[in-house]
Amino acid sequence: MKDKIKYIAFDADDTLWDNEIFFQEVETKFCSLVANYLPGDEAFKQLLDKEMENLHLYGYGAKGMMLCMIELICGIADAKDSPGCIMEIIRFGKELLEKPVALLDGVEEVLSELGKEHRLVLATKGDLLDQERKIIKSGIRNYFDHIEIMSNKKSTDYLNLMNKLNCEPGNFLMVGNSLKSDIVPVLEAGASAVYIPYHITWAHEQHDETINHPNFTELNNITEIFNCL
Amino acid sequence: MKDKIKYIAFDADDTLWDNEIFFQEVETKFCSLVANYLPGDEAFKQLLDKEMENLHLYGYGAKGMMLCMIELICGIADAKDSPGCIMEIIRFGKELLEKPVALLDGVEEVLSELGKEHRLVLATKGDLLDQERKIIKSGIRNYFDHIEIMSNKKSTDYLNLMNKLNCEPGNFLMVGNSLKSDIVPVLEAGASAVYIPYHITWAHEQHDETINHPNFTELNNITEIFNCL
Repeated sequence: MKDKIKYIAFDADDTLWDNEIFFQEVETKFCSLVANYLPGDEAFKQLLDKEMENLHLYGYGAKGMMLCMIELICGIADAKDSPGCIMEIIRFGKELLEKPVALLDGVEEVLSELGKEHRLVLATKGDLLDQERKIIKSGIRNYFDHIEIMSNKKSTDYLNLMNKLNCEPGNFLMVGNSLKSDIVPVLEAGASAVYIPYHITWAHEQHDETINHPNFTELNNITEIFNCL
Repeated sequence: MKDKIKYIAFDADDTLWDNEIFFQEVETKFCSLVANYLPGDEAFKQLLDKEMENLHLYGYGAKGMMLCMIELICGIADAKDSPGCIMEIIRFGKELLEKPVALLDGVEEVLSELGKEHRLVLATKGDLLDQERKIIKSGIRNYFDHIEIMSNKKSTDYLNLMNKLNCEPGNFLMVGNSLKSDIVPVLEAGASAVYIPYHITWAHEQHDETINHPNFTELNNITEIFNCL
Protein backbone atom coordinates (compact mmCIF):
# COMPACT_ATOMS: atom_id res chain seq x y z
CA MET A 1 0.00 0.00 0.00
CA LYS A 2 2.91 2.20 0.90
CA ASP A 3 3.66 4.07 -2.30
CA LYS A 4 0.36 4.58 -3.98
CA ILE A 5 -1.63 6.26 -1.16
CA LYS A 6 -1.75 10.04 -1.50
CA TYR A 7 -4.87 10.92 0.49
CA ILE A 8 -5.66 9.43 3.90
CA ALA A 9 -9.18 10.17 5.12
CA PHE A 10 -10.16 9.66 8.74
CA ASP A 11 -13.59 9.15 10.17
CA ALA A 12 -13.96 11.27 13.32
CA ASP A 13 -16.44 9.92 15.90
CA ASP A 14 -14.94 6.85 17.62
CA THR A 15 -11.96 6.87 15.27
CA LEU A 16 -10.26 10.08 16.47
CA TRP A 17 -12.30 10.82 19.59
CA ASP A 18 -14.90 9.18 21.85
CA ASN A 19 -18.51 9.63 20.78
CA GLU A 20 -20.74 6.55 20.90
CA ILE A 21 -20.07 6.11 24.59
CA PHE A 22 -21.74 9.48 25.29
CA PHE A 23 -24.73 8.64 23.10
CA GLN A 24 -25.10 5.33 24.92
CA GLU A 25 -25.01 7.14 28.26
CA VAL A 26 -27.95 9.25 27.11
CA GLU A 27 -29.81 6.18 25.84
CA THR A 28 -29.31 4.51 29.21
CA LYS A 29 -30.66 7.59 31.01
CA PHE A 30 -33.65 7.57 28.63
CA CYS A 31 -34.35 3.93 29.42
CA SER A 32 -34.31 4.70 33.17
CA LEU A 33 -36.66 7.60 32.58
CA VAL A 34 -39.24 5.42 30.84
CA ALA A 35 -38.66 2.28 32.94
CA ASN A 36 -42.21 2.50 34.36
CA TYR A 37 -43.65 2.26 30.86
CA LEU A 38 -41.13 0.24 28.84
CA PRO A 39 -39.26 -2.47 30.71
CA GLY A 40 -35.62 -3.38 30.06
CA ASP A 41 -34.47 -3.71 26.48
CA GLU A 42 -37.85 -2.72 25.07
CA ALA A 43 -37.03 0.99 25.45
CA PHE A 44 -33.70 0.55 23.59
CA LYS A 45 -35.48 -1.35 20.85
CA GLN A 46 -38.31 1.14 20.44
CA LEU A 47 -35.86 4.03 20.40
CA LEU A 48 -33.78 2.45 17.65
CA ASP A 49 -36.94 1.68 15.66
CA LYS A 50 -38.09 5.30 16.02
CA GLU A 51 -34.66 6.58 14.98
CA MET A 52 -34.71 4.40 11.87
CA GLU A 53 -38.27 5.50 11.08
CA ASN A 54 -37.23 9.18 11.22
CA LEU A 55 -33.69 8.90 9.85
CA HIS A 56 -34.67 10.09 6.36
CA LEU A 57 -36.06 13.27 7.94
CA TYR A 58 -33.72 14.01 10.84
CA GLY A 59 -30.43 12.47 9.74
CA TYR A 60 -27.75 11.51 12.26
CA GLY A 61 -26.94 13.30 15.47
CA ALA A 62 -28.14 14.43 18.88
CA LYS A 63 -31.07 16.60 17.79
CA GLY A 64 -32.72 13.78 15.86
CA MET A 65 -32.21 11.42 18.81
CA MET A 66 -33.79 13.97 21.16
CA LEU A 67 -36.82 14.39 18.90
CA CYS A 68 -37.25 10.60 18.66
CA MET A 69 -37.08 10.20 22.45
CA ILE A 70 -39.66 12.98 22.89
CA GLU A 71 -41.98 11.41 20.31
CA LEU A 72 -41.72 8.06 22.09
CA ILE A 73 -42.41 9.60 25.51
CA CYS A 74 -45.54 11.37 24.27
CA GLY A 75 -46.87 8.06 23.03
CA ILE A 76 -46.31 6.08 26.21
CA ALA A 77 -46.02 8.20 29.37
CA ASP A 78 -48.89 9.51 31.49
CA ALA A 79 -49.64 13.11 30.57
CA LYS A 80 -48.72 14.29 34.06
CA ASP A 81 -45.23 12.79 33.74
CA SER A 82 -44.54 13.90 30.17
CA PRO A 83 -43.36 17.50 30.61
CA GLY A 84 -40.87 16.52 33.31
CA CYS A 85 -39.52 13.61 31.25
CA ILE A 86 -39.22 15.79 28.16
CA MET A 87 -37.33 18.51 30.02
CA GLU A 88 -34.95 15.78 31.20
CA ILE A 89 -34.42 14.61 27.61
CA ILE A 90 -33.71 18.18 26.51
CA ARG A 91 -31.21 18.50 29.34
CA PHE A 92 -29.50 15.20 28.42
CA GLY A 93 -29.31 16.30 24.78
CA LYS A 94 -27.85 19.69 25.56
CA GLU A 95 -25.25 18.10 27.84
CA LEU A 96 -24.35 15.72 25.01
CA LEU A 97 -23.92 18.63 22.59
CA GLU A 98 -21.60 20.37 25.04
CA LYS A 99 -19.35 17.40 25.86
CA PRO A 100 -15.63 18.10 25.66
CA VAL A 101 -13.76 16.26 22.91
CA ALA A 102 -11.16 13.75 24.10
CA LEU A 103 -8.78 12.43 21.45
CA LEU A 104 -8.14 8.69 21.44
CA ASP A 105 -4.61 7.53 22.32
CA GLY A 106 -2.01 8.14 19.64
CA VAL A 107 -4.22 10.22 17.33
CA GLU A 108 -2.20 13.40 17.34
CA GLU A 109 1.10 11.53 16.87
CA VAL A 110 -0.35 9.64 13.89
CA LEU A 111 -1.74 12.76 12.20
CA SER A 112 1.47 14.67 12.73
CA GLU A 113 3.58 11.88 11.25
CA LEU A 114 1.32 10.87 8.33
CA GLY A 115 0.75 14.50 7.38
CA LYS A 116 4.41 14.77 6.41
CA GLU A 117 3.99 12.59 3.32
CA HIS A 118 0.24 12.46 2.70
CA ARG A 119 -2.67 14.81 2.36
CA LEU A 120 -5.04 14.24 5.28
CA VAL A 121 -8.80 14.47 5.09
CA LEU A 122 -11.45 14.37 7.80
CA ALA A 123 -14.54 12.58 6.45
CA THR A 124 -17.25 12.54 9.05
CA LYS A 125 -20.97 11.88 9.04
CA GLY A 126 -23.47 13.75 11.15
CA ASP A 127 -24.92 17.07 12.09
CA LEU A 128 -23.02 19.98 10.51
CA LEU A 129 -22.83 22.33 13.50
CA ASP A 130 -22.15 19.53 15.97
CA GLN A 131 -19.32 18.07 13.88
CA GLU A 132 -17.76 21.51 13.28
CA ARG A 133 -17.89 22.21 17.00
CA LYS A 134 -16.14 18.92 17.76
CA ILE A 135 -13.46 19.57 15.14
CA ILE A 136 -12.72 22.95 16.72
CA LYS A 137 -12.76 21.54 20.26
CA SER A 138 -10.48 18.67 19.21
CA GLY A 139 -7.60 21.04 18.47
CA ILE A 140 -6.51 18.96 15.45
CA ARG A 141 -8.17 21.04 12.70
CA ASN A 142 -4.84 22.14 11.25
CA TYR A 143 -3.61 18.64 10.43
CA PHE A 144 -6.27 18.32 7.72
CA ASP A 145 -6.04 19.59 4.15
CA HIS A 146 -9.74 19.02 3.62
CA ILE A 147 -12.77 18.48 5.84
CA GLU A 148 -15.89 16.81 4.51
CA ILE A 149 -19.00 16.62 6.67
CA MET A 150 -21.23 14.12 4.92
CA SER A 151 -24.93 13.40 5.36
CA ASN A 152 -24.26 9.85 4.27
CA LYS A 153 -21.34 7.51 3.61
CA LYS A 154 -22.36 5.39 0.67
CA SER A 155 -20.02 4.35 -2.12
CA THR A 156 -21.18 7.25 -4.34
CA ASP A 157 -20.55 9.72 -1.51
CA TYR A 158 -16.93 8.54 -1.35
CA LEU A 159 -16.59 8.72 -5.13
CA ASN A 160 -17.90 12.32 -5.00
CA LEU A 161 -15.37 13.12 -2.29
CA MET A 162 -12.47 11.62 -4.29
CA ASN A 163 -13.66 13.52 -7.34
CA LYS A 164 -13.66 16.75 -5.36
CA LEU A 165 -10.12 15.99 -4.17
CA ASN A 166 -9.08 15.06 -7.71
CA CYS A 167 -7.88 11.73 -6.30
CA GLU A 168 -8.10 8.32 -7.97
CA PRO A 169 -9.56 5.50 -5.82
CA GLY A 170 -6.21 3.72 -5.99
CA ASN A 171 -4.59 6.66 -4.19
CA PHE A 172 -7.20 6.95 -1.44
CA LEU A 173 -7.23 5.30 1.97
CA MET A 174 -10.05 5.60 4.50
CA VAL A 175 -9.52 4.91 8.21
CA GLY A 176 -12.52 4.31 10.43
CA ASN A 177 -14.34 2.28 13.05
CA SER A 178 -17.52 1.44 11.16
CA LEU A 179 -17.42 -1.46 8.70
CA LYS A 180 -20.75 -0.30 7.31
CA SER A 181 -19.89 3.38 6.79
CA ASP A 182 -16.10 3.64 6.61
CA ILE A 183 -14.96 0.36 5.11
CA VAL A 184 -17.41 -1.53 2.87
CA PRO A 185 -18.46 1.45 0.70
CA VAL A 186 -14.83 2.57 0.35
CA LEU A 187 -13.74 -0.89 -0.85
CA GLU A 188 -16.70 -0.90 -3.24
CA ALA A 189 -15.46 2.42 -4.62
CA GLY A 190 -12.11 0.80 -5.41
CA ALA A 191 -10.12 2.50 -2.67
CA SER A 192 -8.33 1.08 0.39
CA ALA A 193 -9.64 0.91 3.95
CA VAL A 194 -8.17 0.46 7.41
CA TYR A 195 -10.61 -0.73 10.07
CA ILE A 196 -9.93 0.09 13.72
CA PRO A 197 -12.80 -1.24 15.85
CA TYR A 198 -14.01 0.89 18.74
CA HIS A 199 -15.11 -1.00 21.83
CA ILE A 200 -18.79 -0.24 21.23
CA THR A 201 -20.82 0.25 18.04
CA TRP A 202 -24.23 1.86 17.53
CA ALA A 203 -26.74 -0.85 16.61
CA HIS A 204 -27.45 0.92 13.31
CA GLU A 205 -23.77 0.73 12.33
CA GLN A 206 -23.37 -2.96 13.08
CA HIS A 207 -22.16 -5.13 10.24
CA ASP A 208 -21.75 -8.83 10.74
CA GLU A 209 -20.06 -9.99 7.55
CA THR A 210 -16.38 -10.83 7.53
CA ILE A 211 -14.38 -8.70 5.14
CA ASN A 212 -11.94 -10.45 2.88
CA HIS A 213 -10.49 -8.00 0.41
CA PRO A 214 -6.94 -7.21 -0.76
CA ASN A 215 -7.36 -3.49 0.07
CA PHE A 216 -8.62 -4.16 3.59
CA THR A 217 -6.57 -4.01 6.79
CA GLU A 218 -7.73 -4.39 10.38
CA LEU A 219 -5.76 -2.82 13.22
CA ASN A 220 -6.07 -2.84 16.99
CA ASN A 221 -5.28 0.83 17.42
CA ILE A 222 -4.45 3.83 15.30
CA THR A 223 -0.68 3.83 15.94
CA GLU A 224 -0.40 0.44 14.18
CA ILE A 225 -1.08 2.33 10.94
CA PHE A 226 2.67 3.05 10.75
CA ASN A 227 3.21 -0.66 10.03
CA CYS A 228 1.15 -0.58 6.85
CA LEU A 229 2.16 2.76 5.31
CA MET B 1 -18.37 44.33 -12.40
CA LYS B 2 -18.74 42.52 -15.69
CA ASP B 3 -15.23 41.30 -16.45
CA LYS B 4 -13.68 40.52 -13.12
CA ILE B 5 -16.32 38.14 -11.67
CA LYS B 6 -15.38 34.48 -12.11
CA TYR B 7 -17.39 32.82 -9.34
CA ILE B 8 -21.03 33.63 -8.62
CA ALA B 9 -22.33 32.15 -5.38
CA PHE B 10 -26.03 31.94 -4.63
CA ASP B 11 -27.72 31.67 -1.29
CA ALA B 12 -30.50 29.07 -1.51
CA ASP B 13 -33.41 29.59 0.93
CA ASP B 14 -35.52 32.58 -0.23
CA THR B 15 -33.02 33.39 -2.98
CA LEU B 16 -33.58 30.36 -5.24
CA TRP B 17 -36.64 28.85 -3.60
CA ASP B 18 -39.29 29.67 -0.98
CA ASN B 19 -38.38 28.80 2.59
CA GLU B 20 -39.14 31.41 5.25
CA ILE B 21 -42.81 31.42 4.34
CA PHE B 22 -43.05 27.74 5.41
CA PHE B 23 -41.20 28.40 8.68
CA GLN B 24 -43.55 31.30 9.40
CA GLU B 25 -46.54 29.05 8.74
CA VAL B 26 -45.24 26.67 11.42
CA GLU B 27 -44.59 29.55 13.83
CA THR B 28 -48.16 30.77 13.30
CA LYS B 29 -49.51 27.27 14.01
CA PHE B 30 -47.35 27.13 17.14
CA CYS B 31 -48.77 30.47 18.34
CA SER B 32 -52.33 29.17 17.85
CA LEU B 33 -51.42 26.04 19.76
CA VAL B 34 -50.21 28.01 22.80
CA ALA B 35 -52.75 30.85 22.54
CA ASN B 36 -54.33 29.86 25.86
CA TYR B 37 -51.00 30.35 27.61
CA LEU B 38 -49.19 33.06 25.63
CA PRO B 39 -51.35 35.71 24.01
CA GLY B 40 -50.64 37.31 20.63
CA ASP B 41 -47.09 38.35 19.87
CA GLU B 42 -45.75 37.03 23.17
CA ALA B 43 -45.47 33.49 21.75
CA PHE B 44 -43.52 34.73 18.69
CA LYS B 45 -41.23 36.72 20.97
CA GLN B 46 -40.59 33.88 23.42
CA LEU B 47 -39.93 31.47 20.56
CA LEU B 48 -37.37 33.77 18.98
CA ASP B 49 -35.72 34.30 22.39
CA LYS B 50 -35.56 30.54 22.92
CA GLU B 51 -34.11 29.99 19.43
CA MET B 52 -31.41 32.58 20.07
CA GLU B 53 -30.66 31.04 23.50
CA ASN B 54 -30.15 27.61 21.89
CA LEU B 55 -28.63 28.66 18.56
CA HIS B 56 -25.07 27.88 19.64
CA LEU B 57 -26.19 24.31 20.38
CA TYR B 58 -28.79 23.54 17.72
CA GLY B 59 -27.75 25.76 14.81
CA TYR B 60 -30.23 26.73 12.10
CA GLY B 61 -33.08 24.64 10.75
CA ALA B 62 -36.30 22.84 11.48
CA LYS B 63 -35.05 20.39 14.14
CA GLY B 64 -33.70 23.18 16.35
CA MET B 65 -36.96 25.10 15.96
CA MET B 66 -38.97 22.00 16.93
CA LEU B 67 -36.85 21.45 20.05
CA CYS B 68 -37.25 25.10 21.06
CA MET B 69 -41.03 24.94 20.63
CA ILE B 70 -41.16 21.76 22.72
CA GLU B 71 -39.01 23.29 25.45
CA LEU B 72 -41.30 26.33 25.58
CA ILE B 73 -44.46 24.20 25.72
CA CYS B 74 -43.13 22.16 28.64
CA GLY B 75 -42.52 25.38 30.55
CA ILE B 76 -45.95 26.92 30.05
CA ALA B 77 -48.70 24.41 29.17
CA ASP B 78 -50.75 22.36 31.62
CA ALA B 79 -49.31 18.86 31.90
CA LYS B 80 -52.50 17.30 30.53
CA ASP B 81 -52.21 19.39 27.33
CA SER B 82 -48.48 18.96 26.78
CA PRO B 83 -48.26 15.56 25.03
CA GLY B 84 -50.94 16.53 22.49
CA CYS B 85 -49.29 19.89 21.78
CA ILE B 86 -45.88 18.28 21.42
CA MET B 87 -47.15 15.67 18.98
CA GLU B 88 -48.63 18.54 16.96
CA ILE B 89 -45.25 20.30 16.91
CA ILE B 90 -43.54 17.11 15.77
CA ARG B 91 -46.14 16.77 13.03
CA PHE B 92 -45.65 20.41 11.91
CA GLY B 93 -41.88 19.92 11.87
CA LYS B 94 -42.01 16.72 9.85
CA GLU B 95 -44.36 18.37 7.34
CA LEU B 96 -41.90 21.26 7.06
CA LEU B 97 -39.02 18.85 6.39
CA GLU B 98 -41.04 17.17 3.64
CA LYS B 99 -42.18 20.31 1.80
CA PRO B 100 -41.67 20.27 -1.93
CA VAL B 101 -39.14 22.79 -3.27
CA ALA B 102 -40.57 25.49 -5.54
CA LEU B 103 -38.02 27.57 -7.47
CA LEU B 104 -38.59 31.34 -7.52
CA ASP B 105 -39.42 32.90 -10.89
CA GLY B 106 -36.53 33.16 -13.32
CA VAL B 107 -34.05 31.09 -11.27
CA GLU B 108 -33.43 28.32 -13.76
CA GLU B 109 -33.08 30.75 -16.69
CA VAL B 110 -30.54 32.81 -14.71
CA LEU B 111 -28.45 29.79 -13.68
CA SER B 112 -28.47 28.37 -17.18
CA GLU B 113 -27.34 31.67 -18.71
CA LEU B 114 -24.76 32.71 -16.08
CA GLY B 115 -23.28 29.23 -16.00
CA LYS B 116 -22.05 29.71 -19.57
CA GLU B 117 -19.39 32.23 -18.54
CA HIS B 118 -19.02 31.83 -14.79
CA ARG B 119 -18.48 29.12 -12.25
CA LEU B 120 -21.59 28.83 -10.10
CA VAL B 121 -21.58 28.01 -6.38
CA LEU B 122 -24.42 27.27 -3.99
CA ALA B 123 -23.56 28.71 -0.58
CA THR B 124 -26.29 27.92 1.89
CA LYS B 125 -26.59 27.97 5.66
CA GLY B 126 -28.52 25.41 7.65
CA ASP B 127 -29.00 21.79 8.51
CA LEU B 128 -26.87 19.49 6.32
CA LEU B 129 -29.41 16.79 5.51
CA ASP B 130 -32.26 19.27 5.07
CA GLN B 131 -30.26 21.47 2.69
CA GLU B 132 -29.04 18.46 0.68
CA ARG B 133 -32.59 17.19 0.37
CA LYS B 134 -33.77 20.58 -0.90
CA ILE B 135 -30.92 20.78 -3.43
CA ILE B 136 -31.89 17.38 -4.81
CA LYS B 137 -35.61 18.21 -4.85
CA SER B 138 -34.91 21.54 -6.57
CA GLY B 139 -33.62 19.80 -9.70
CA ILE B 140 -30.92 22.47 -10.21
CA ARG B 141 -27.98 20.59 -8.68
CA ASN B 142 -26.18 20.28 -11.99
CA TYR B 143 -25.86 24.01 -12.59
CA PHE B 144 -23.40 24.29 -9.70
CA ASP B 145 -19.67 23.62 -9.82
CA HIS B 146 -19.45 23.63 -6.05
CA ILE B 147 -21.90 23.33 -3.17
CA GLU B 148 -21.04 24.66 0.26
CA ILE B 149 -23.38 24.01 3.17
CA MET B 150 -22.19 26.34 5.91
CA SER B 151 -22.97 26.38 9.62
CA ASN B 152 -22.40 30.12 9.60
CA LYS B 153 -21.95 32.96 7.12
CA LYS B 154 -19.47 35.30 8.71
CA SER B 155 -16.76 37.12 6.80
CA THR B 156 -14.17 34.44 7.68
CA ASP B 157 -16.53 31.70 6.45
CA TYR B 158 -16.66 33.42 3.05
CA LEU B 159 -12.88 33.86 3.00
CA ASN B 160 -12.51 30.13 3.73
CA LEU B 161 -14.90 29.36 0.88
CA MET B 162 -13.00 31.59 -1.57
CA ASN B 163 -9.76 30.01 -0.44
CA LYS B 164 -11.20 26.56 -1.10
CA LEU B 165 -12.28 27.70 -4.58
CA ASN B 166 -8.88 29.31 -5.14
CA CYS B 167 -10.73 32.53 -5.94
CA GLU B 168 -9.65 36.09 -5.06
CA PRO B 169 -12.32 38.26 -3.36
CA GLY B 170 -12.25 40.59 -6.37
CA ASN B 171 -13.44 37.71 -8.58
CA PHE B 172 -16.26 36.58 -6.27
CA LEU B 173 -19.89 37.68 -6.28
CA MET B 174 -22.49 36.55 -3.76
CA VAL B 175 -26.23 36.75 -4.49
CA GLY B 176 -28.69 36.53 -1.61
CA ASN B 177 -31.70 37.80 0.26
CA SER B 178 -30.17 38.40 3.69
CA LEU B 179 -28.20 41.60 4.22
CA LYS B 180 -26.83 40.14 7.46
CA SER B 181 -25.69 36.77 6.08
CA ASP B 182 -25.25 37.15 2.32
CA ILE B 183 -24.23 40.77 1.83
CA VAL B 184 -22.47 42.54 4.72
CA PRO B 185 -19.90 39.78 5.49
CA VAL B 186 -19.17 39.35 1.76
CA LEU B 187 -18.49 43.07 1.31
CA GLU B 188 -16.29 42.96 4.44
CA ALA B 189 -14.34 40.13 2.82
CA GLY B 190 -13.61 42.37 -0.17
CA ALA B 191 -15.94 40.63 -2.63
CA SER B 192 -19.08 41.87 -4.41
CA ALA B 193 -22.68 41.27 -3.40
CA VAL B 194 -26.07 41.42 -5.04
CA TYR B 195 -29.02 41.80 -2.69
CA ILE B 196 -32.45 40.57 -3.79
CA PRO B 197 -34.93 41.08 -0.94
CA TYR B 198 -37.52 38.38 -0.32
CA HIS B 199 -40.93 39.60 0.80
CA ILE B 200 -40.44 38.33 4.37
CA THR B 201 -37.33 38.00 6.55
CA TRP B 202 -36.77 35.94 9.70
CA ALA B 203 -36.46 38.31 12.66
CA HIS B 204 -32.96 36.96 13.37
CA GLU B 205 -31.80 37.90 9.86
CA GLN B 206 -33.12 41.45 9.95
CA HIS B 207 -30.59 44.18 9.35
CA ASP B 208 -31.66 47.80 9.46
CA GLU B 209 -28.61 49.67 8.25
CA THR B 210 -28.49 51.11 4.75
CA ILE B 211 -25.68 49.70 2.67
CA ASN B 212 -23.58 52.14 0.72
CA HIS B 213 -20.67 50.36 -0.88
CA PRO B 214 -19.19 50.35 -4.40
CA ASN B 215 -19.42 46.52 -4.63
CA PHE B 216 -23.08 46.43 -3.58
CA THR B 217 -26.08 46.16 -5.90
CA GLU B 218 -29.75 45.78 -4.98
CA LEU B 219 -32.19 44.18 -7.41
CA ASN B 220 -35.94 43.58 -7.39
CA ASN B 221 -35.72 40.08 -8.78
CA ILE B 222 -33.09 37.59 -9.89
CA THR B 223 -33.51 38.12 -13.66
CA GLU B 224 -32.31 41.72 -13.26
CA ILE B 225 -28.85 40.25 -12.62
CA PHE B 226 -28.31 40.18 -16.40
CA ASN B 227 -28.16 44.01 -16.30
CA CYS B 228 -25.14 44.07 -14.00
CA LEU B 229 -23.05 41.21 -15.37
